Amino acid sequence: MGYNETDQLIVNTIRVMAADATFHANSGHPGAPMGMAPVAHVLWNRFMKFNPKNPKWVNRDRFVLSNGHGCMLQYALLHLYGFGLSMDDIKAFRHVDSITPGHPEAHDTPGIEVTTGPLGQGISNAVGLAIAQAHTGAVFNRDGFDLINNYTYCFLGDGCLMEGVSAEASSLAGHLQLGNLIAIYDDNHISIDGDTNVAFTEDVVKRYESYGWQVIVVADGDHNFDGIEAAIKAAQAVKDKPTLIKLRTIIGFGSLQQGTHGVHGSPLKADDIKQLKTKFGFNPDESFVVPQAVYDATAKKIAEGAALEKEWNELFAKYGQQYKAEHDDLVRRLKGDLPEGWEKHLPVYKPSDAAVASRKLSETVLTKLEAVIPELIGGSADLTGSNLTRWKDAVDFQPPSTGLGNYAGRYIRYGVREHGMGAILNGLAAYGTLIPYSGTFLNFVSYAAGAVRLSALSQVRVIWVATHDSIGLGEDGPTHQPIETLAHFRALPNCMVWRPADGNETSAAYYVALISKHTPSILALSRQNLPQLESSTIEKAIKGGYVVHEDKSADITLVSTGSEVGICVETIKTLAEKHNLKARVVSLPCFEVFDAQSKEYRLSVLPDGIPSLSVEVMSTMGWERYTHEQFGLNRFGASGAYKDVYKKFEFTPEGVAKRAVATVNFWKDVPNIRSPLNRAFQQLV
Amino acid sequence: MGYNETDQLIVNTIRVMAADATFHANSGHPGAPMGMAPVAHVLWNRFMKFNPKNPKWVNRDRFVLSNGHGCMLQYALLHLYGFGLSMDDIKAFRHVDSITPGHPEAHDTPGIEVTTGPLGQGISNAVGLAIAQAHTGAVFNRDGFDLINNYTYCFLGDGCLMEGVSAEASSLAGHLQLGNLIAIYDDNHISIDGDTNVAFTEDVVKRYESYGWQVIVVADGDHNFDGIEAAIKAAQAVKDKPTLIKLRTIIGFGSLQQGTHGVHGSPLKADDIKQLKTKFGFNPDESFVVPQAVYDATAKKIAEGAALEKEWNELFAKYGQQYKAEHDDLVRRLKGDLPEGWEKHLPVYKPSDAAVASRKLSETVLTKLEAVIPELIGGSADLTGSNLTRWKDAVDFQPPSTGLGNYAGRYIRYGVREHGMGAILNGLAAYGTLIPYSGTFLNFVSYAAGAVRLSALSQVRVIWVATHDSIGLGEDGPTHQPIETLAHFRALPNCMVWRPADGNETSAAYYVALISKHTPSILALSRQNLPQLESSTIEKAIKGGYVVHEDKSADITLVSTGSEVGICVETIKTLAEKHNLKARVVSLPCFEVFDAQSKEYRLSVLPDGIPSLSVEVMSTMGWERYTHEQFGLNRFGASGAYKDVYKKFEFTPEGVAKRAVATVNFWKDVPNIRSPLNRAFQQLV
Repeated sequence: MGYNETDQLIVNTIRVMAADATFHANSGHPGAPMGMAPVAHVLWNRFMKFNPKNPKWVNRDRFVLSNGHGCMLQYALLHLYGFGLSMDDIKAFRHVDSITPGHPEAHDTPGIEVTTGPLGQGISNAVGLAIAQAHTGAVFNRDGFDLINNYTYCFLGDGCLMEGVSAEASSLAGHLQLGNLIAIYDDNHISIDGDTNVAFTEDVVKRYESYGWQVIVVADGDHNFDGIEAAIKAAQAVKDKPTLIKLRTIIGFGSLQQGTHGVHGSPLKADDIKQLKTKFGFNPDESFVVPQAVYDATAKKIAEGAALEKEWNELFAKYGQQYKAEHDDLVRRLKGDLPEGWEKHLPVYKPSDAAVASRKLSETVLTKLEAVIPELIGGSADLTGSNLTRWKDAVDFQPPSTGLGNYAGRYIRYGVREHGMGAILNGLAAYGTLIPYSGTFLNFVSYAAGAVRLSALSQVRVIWVATHDSIGLGEDGPTHQPIETLAHFRALPNCMVWRPADGNETSAAYYVALISKHTPSILALSRQNLPQLESSTIEKAIKGGYVVHEDKSADITLVSTGSEVGICVETIKTLAEKHNLKARVVSLPCFEVFDAQSKEYRLSVLPDGIPSLSVEVMSTMGWERYTHEQFGLNRFGASGAYKDVYKKFEFTPEGVAKRAVATVNFWKDVPNIRSPLNRAFQQLV
Repeated sequence: MGYNETDQLIVNTIRVMAADATFHANSGHPGAPMGMAPVAHVLWNRFMKFNPKNPKWVNRDRFVLSNGHGCMLQYALLHLYGFGLSMDDIKAFRHVDSITPGHPEAHDTPGIEVTTGPLGQGISNAVGLAIAQAHTGAVFNRDGFDLINNYTYCFLGDGCLMEGVSAEASSLAGHLQLGNLIAIYDDNHISIDGDTNVAFTEDVVKRYESYGWQVIVVADGDHNFDGIEAAIKAAQAVKDKPTLIKLRTIIGFGSLQQGTHGVHGSPLKADDIKQLKTKFGFNPDESFVVPQAVYDATAKKIAEGAALEKEWNELFAKYGQQYKAEHDDLVRRLKGDLPEGWEKHLPVYKPSDAAVASRKLSETVLTKLEAVIPELIGGSADLTGSNLTRWKDAVDFQPPSTGLGNYAGRYIRYGVREHGMGAILNGLAAYGTLIPYSGTFLNFVSYAAGAVRLSALSQVRVIWVATHDSIGLGEDGPTHQPIETLAHFRALPNCMVWRPADGNETSAAYYVALISKHTPSILALSRQNLPQLESSTIEKAIKGGYVVHEDKSADITLVSTGSEVGICVETIKTLAEKHNLKARVVSLPCFEVFDAQSKEYRLSVLPDGIPSLSVEVMSTMGWERYTHEQFGLNRFGASGAYKDVYKKFEFTPEGVAKRAVATVNFWKDVPNIRSPLNRAFQQLV
């Protein structure tokens, strides 16, 4: 209420900044920022709690721009509200090495919570952020100490609503009754192909109601500031439902081309910008100008934000006197550090221990760690009993009213929604108080590829418990047996793919995954039992690769991962007895981590002088970097009992030996065999 | 109406077969087949049009089991209705090399339309099948010749509804008013994690109504055969909406554990099967028994089906007299053959032709071919103007009532729904009369990874027009710049990934994609302009790799794809002038196709004797198979003008030359350098 000329000026300043920046970059999306400037202003100026001097304050409201192509809106807000984005940064929009890239990137730019742009991700991240708030509040809040009570606000467009990932996450958000989540849908009727009526005519209101959301419609998002404010207040008032505010706007408001897809993805023409500035009372010959009245108005909000955090810090200090353990726990979590001595709880195995499936070994790790690392929050995409992701007596994260759990619960039932789950995991990790892990079959991590990519790009600590990791899953057959999946994620930068061979390696995988604050991990785990290796230790395995069986006079190095390491160990005997050959065996559970070791170490594992053969029951792609020859599966698998399937494809000691012999023969006339680790030049990083 | 004891016997026979087969395999999912046996019986016995002697009859009704884990239901039906699945095949359920694998696979088993199991795919394929029917009918039907009027029926479960891919496809199906699509939702309240109330409490009826579907509820799917029949009739009666029939069933009906997740994914216990058989009047000591009365009943339906096709064939022959061209066109399409001489329309370029972006070259190909290949049906995931997938004057595939196109239209507006689009493409291709292609950015093909995998596994001819294929897209930045994507899909078996370097290579990519009846293709195309190469021809490029610039005294082979081939050609001069080195240049637009050439040819392209360096602006993974050293980008890209981004990462003649020099130096002391194409053994295929 009480909106005046200054409010309109702030709105128009945002619009002009978006027009200027995209014009200057000769690239970008002015339309959404110009259309959403009013709601952005009302939200940021009247509702959002934040302190720009500490963009990481835990109880800040989270803002997510799911339609990330409209990022000039967010950059303009961050500039106006003092987040340290200078006008030079705005001028450098979409220029190499700026902090104002073409889509918002969380790891580079202060005030950006999550990396968005790929459509549907942001709203799904927002669901994760809202779950994290609800959980963190339930764990830490006490009578008189409403420490954690922030909202998560999300802007999204038609594209976000069309993407299935948002459907998955939104359905779950409704089920979870996340009253702290407020999404504002920019209903501008325009997408790249033109009017949304060419492809998107569903009833969005009804759809979100079917998910259990409150839906509020604001018919004039261009002028009705009061209506927007009332809608956000109504959203806040409903505590057991997320809210979608459907806001009708005109894309590119103020442009001569407003309301058309001409303003969606291309800068305005020079003349158009001139008339826009004139119409809004700006000097048409100047660019990148913010009226002092605007800075004055936002300065007030900035000061309020600093005061808010100060007040909160005092409350938190008082909380610390009464609840020291909880206080210190929260402080520790926010640093991303793990509790001291946690690693002593990692299970350790002896060679004489029983053969166990690595999915089961993973369950043991989680069971040992859950009490020690309270920020671990688990789940599965409806495969709990197969992924073994739930420790005994875990409490489900559920709305208390369901009787199925509560918000302090640490196990999330994601449903069969891998992509939504992946994006929610990113939101959970971005919140700052949690380390999320969750399960599905390795093959179906691919459904979530869009989200996994953003885990890596935005540098969040997320762990995928990816069981049933190969043809070894057996009877379910080729539709479920990964072939290309490890190659896919090994090729993804900043993503650790682990395929542990036994208990100690499984512990090692979790160790590295948990201490890596800025890298997601995928743990590829077997359905079938794996023997404990003779010489594995956590210390060796955390190097990503190590020698399982050394032989200084070996004729060949067999290099493998996961379930095939044991087969390679068996092959030593076959080679010795039937072929009079000696073999070393190397386990390489994680390429990314092995690559980070010193060259000296790596060459000690994969030395010059003898040929090497990799053995892994899936695509050989990528193995040429480590080995001279490759035995793998560059075709789809087969449905059958796992031993039959392994036999069909000759992943047996005999099958490996046959190829080892061929390898030794093929390389025997090559003098001074060079390990593939030797490279002519270093990759740029 | 008029269901009697025989009907109940058929239903119970299906249930017992599912129990026996899963028990015998000691693996599989009895619950869904036992619960859905009644609706399967009503549908197959009373509604479905098919002739098992010709499972490819074009006007057959399509049946899709989206909850593919329940495939024993489908195998039982195929057995009972004479599709050539013997009882021995049923006994071999989930055994290696059977035609009854763990999930239905279209390419192996007669009567399986599409490969399902990965949840959400089948219902989305069904949307594609329904679009294909509507289109084919609109193109070929004439007054008095209602040739193509089949229905597409789809069974789906809770898991399918939770997956976002089905949300995407279903929303589009509603928009497209596909009255020929009838989906039956097995509302059994059970998924792997137990009661669906733990994660899936949305209002499915309301959600599907919001998409524009008709929704019908049948409260007792276990006994109310008449109700099921009435629902299907009501579905058929509504011509401008797809229908979802929400059918309440008890999973594992008849088992002692019916209604629990105990019957979902594990065989029944021996005792349970005995009581089941006793209860249903079967001999508890016998297995795999079908009462003769059942065979007699289905024989009647089989005979009716044969008569139906005969009648249709007569109609079609009459049609041929009146509409010879259309008749012959349909016959040709059904064989999968292209029109004679079509390839003469592929554009050919001279080196002097202008530099053009390969996305634009692709547009030219489509423009030249659309009139020649009428079965081409295009589209884009809301990136038409960027993908350049729509030829001028194309008509949209739209419900006529929208005024935006008609069902004979050949351009589909998919909306921002990559995964749904991918699954729909599989359905379009599976129908048998169409060759679908569609566009998105290469980076977002990853959103559709689950569907692309099934394109490859089910061996369908689908073409992805994947533009903006690298950091060369520039300003949109790392969120949109593929790094891992080519490695991912190159590692996928039976998937051709093309990255053409110029006009002739773009024509070649389309040529091979179009003649490959059983393999999907991904065409990675540039946003930026590419020069026409000196020596490219379609004939050379269709080999997947060829020599662009030969030099018998070369010091190094530069191997590249797409936009970097031109840079490598420029590097020849830099190397000669500044480093006194001679370089050969090879273009390798498609690994999969190159791998299929003779070794002699491949070695002529990548010969022994000199070192080679690959140059591609994305993950180097996989290039070690072809080259000694790799220059790529094993990190995320950057937002900026494309030339600035290329420069930042040194993808310039100078940057390439620097690495070429390092490569030559590194390999100069190695005698008899062996091309990486030489391998110790051949992969199993």
